[in-house]
Amino acid sequence: MSEIFIGIDLGGTNIKIGCFDSDIKLISKTSVPTRADMGPEVAVDKMAETVEKLLADADLSLNDVTAAGIGTPGPAKYSEGIIIRSTNMPEFKNVPIRQMLSNKLGKPVVFDNDANVACWGEYAVGAGKGVDNMVFFTLGTGIGGGIINDGKLLHGCGDNAAELGHIIIHPSGRKCNCGQRGCVEAYASANSTAKRASEAVKAGAKSSLKKVLEEYGQITSKDVYEHLKAGDKLAKKITDETAEALAVLCINVLHTTEPKRIVFAGGMIAAGDVLLNRIKHYFNEHIWTLKKETVEICFATLGEDAGIIGAAALAAKRRSRA
Amino acid sequence: MSEIFIGIDLGGTNIKIGCFDSDIKLISKTSVPTRADMGPEVAVDKMAETVEKLLADADLSLNDVTAAGIGTPGPAKYSEGIIIRSTNMPEFKNVPIRQMLSNKLGKPVVFDNDANVACWGEYAVGAGKGVDNMVFFTLGTGIGGGIINDGKLLHGCGDNAAELGHIIIHPSGRKCNCGQRGCVEAYASANSTAKRASEAVKAGAKSSLKKVLEEYGQITSKDVYEHLKAGDKLAKKITDETAEALAVLCINVLHTTEPKRIVFAGGMIAAGDVLLNRIKHYFNEHIWTLKKETVEICFATLGEDAGIIGAAALAAKRRSRA
Repeated sequence: MSEIFIGIDLGGTNIKIGCFDSDIKLISKTSVPTRADMGPEVAVDKMAETVEKLLADADLSLNDVTAAGIGTPGPAKYSEGIIIRSTNMPEFKNVPIRQMLSNKLGKPVVFDNDANVACWGEYAVGAGKGVDNMVFFTLGTGIGGGIINDGKLLHGCGDNAAELGHIIIHPSGRKCNCGQRGCVEAYASANSTAKRASEAVKAGAKSSLKKVLEEYGQITSKDVYEHLKAGDKLAKKITDETAEALAVLCINVLHTTEPKRIVFAGGMIAAGDVLLNRIKHYFNEHIWTLKKETVEICFATLGEDAGIIGAAALAAKRRSRA
Repeated sequence: MSEIFIGIDLGGTNIKIGCFDSDIKLISKTSVPTRADMGPEVAVDKMAETVEKLLADADLSLNDVTAAGIGTPGPAKYSEGIIIRSTNMPEFKNVPIRQMLSNKLGKPVVFDNDANVACWGEYAVGAGKGVDNMVFFTLGTGIGGGIINDGKLLHGCGDNAAELGHIIIHPSGRKCNCGQRGCVEAYASANSTAKRASEAVKAGAKSSLKKVLEEYGQITSKDVYEHLKAGDKLAKKITDETAEALAVLCINVLHTTEPKRIVFAGGMIAAGDVLLNRIKHYFNEHIWTLKKETVEICFATLGEDAGIIGAAALAAKRRSRA
């Protein structure tokens, strides 16, 4: 009998599902629309149907499955398996998602924050493999985080640890969506990077990005990096500010949990070495001289599959502990 | 036969030693000059002699001792039991202090950073008792830190986690002794608080502290709080800046390891409620509105004995694990 693990990444738009062997090698995967408006029961039914279909396509069945893992955005009571509410899934209120899915599949289910799950994926089989102390950041709409300490996810007293995008680096600085001022997220997420570029163009900065704004009504972080590569000075300034904020973030987590490796993920790492090298540059500029730091800063390797990989790997890990 | 634990706090000036029962209740304590200039062997001999004398005075002997703990300032390889070097004890270079003391006493010895040890003391029997997720700050010459995560001290990949005074809150701000700019230590340690007050007076700020500077050539943080209580406006401004920096520090550690309680210790907490209430005020002003935070911010209760208490408690803890 095989030992198969299921990984599920529940987002507001799509549910991604993967089927993995015991080495967390992908056997098959798929994605279905969440249809969050139809509520959690419909979504859980759809997950179970999709899992069965995915297994059947690989000549497997639920009998082969050992456990499943699922990741969702917060806020949630992860230790109790409950989604409290969700910005992108308003019908999901106080949903005991872990128990619902476990009942439907007849298998143990583990449940965690989407950033923690992706962090675990990178730790298990990606850019953090074998590094028992690591910190993980996702650079997307916001900045999510995950912390591995001595080979375990750090959860905190209420399952809300590693909200690393909301570390304050400019107490009188830019307003963040969370209500704080000067969060690193207000400077260095993909959205904030794009927003700072738009603001600068609107304020009259000379830039090739002006045409983008005129033509499309907005600038994306992708535009910023493309124009940077083409030599635009404003794009370079914006990227430098993003990289500097991320470097200070790296220093702050280094002085807190002392990771051996810091892994950046999310859409914005598509910018490539131009971003990574600037982060390293500012890290070296801001870090203390008291002692030499050897932390490695790198990009994630699992791409968009990190969520399903991490969920399956977490299911396998919990299983091995039991 | 009793189960006795020894706690040692090795500082540049004095060695404090305490003798504790298995509930970490103090039986007796003493303090002897370190005489760091005479080197580590003399210091270890003195520790052992003092321990024996302390035990004899309480009608006990080394036979009653289960284990000892010792705390020192860094940098050190705590897991290997070695002091790498010490600012206040220049003769102490690559000293295998744990093994040396263990050989001399014939007992197992645990060794950790002085801030970690004090943190563990507050967790074991002080202001953090029973709170398995807590963060601890000492406000002295610098700002030291300790983190308890799920009932364990968080050490990081190289025993240098919880260097919390060097979290950067103003990347272009004041220069810190560590070489970074804008560390919270450069604003809110006892020394930095005093220094900011002196700078302001020298720059012409109107304040009753001016007389202190003229008379004694310097202002201490104690002066600042005394003049604050007497109604001095500059002292209030300086205290507000200290409290605001500490509040931002609280928020940053909250978003990283999510403690249930944050405990401040060190000489500066003698300022009392006037400081604690301002920290809480700024915490509420800066914290996000995304969700209500219930972290408790309070002052330590063990005072200057935290080091010997924590060292003994750590020895007892390691013993119970073995």
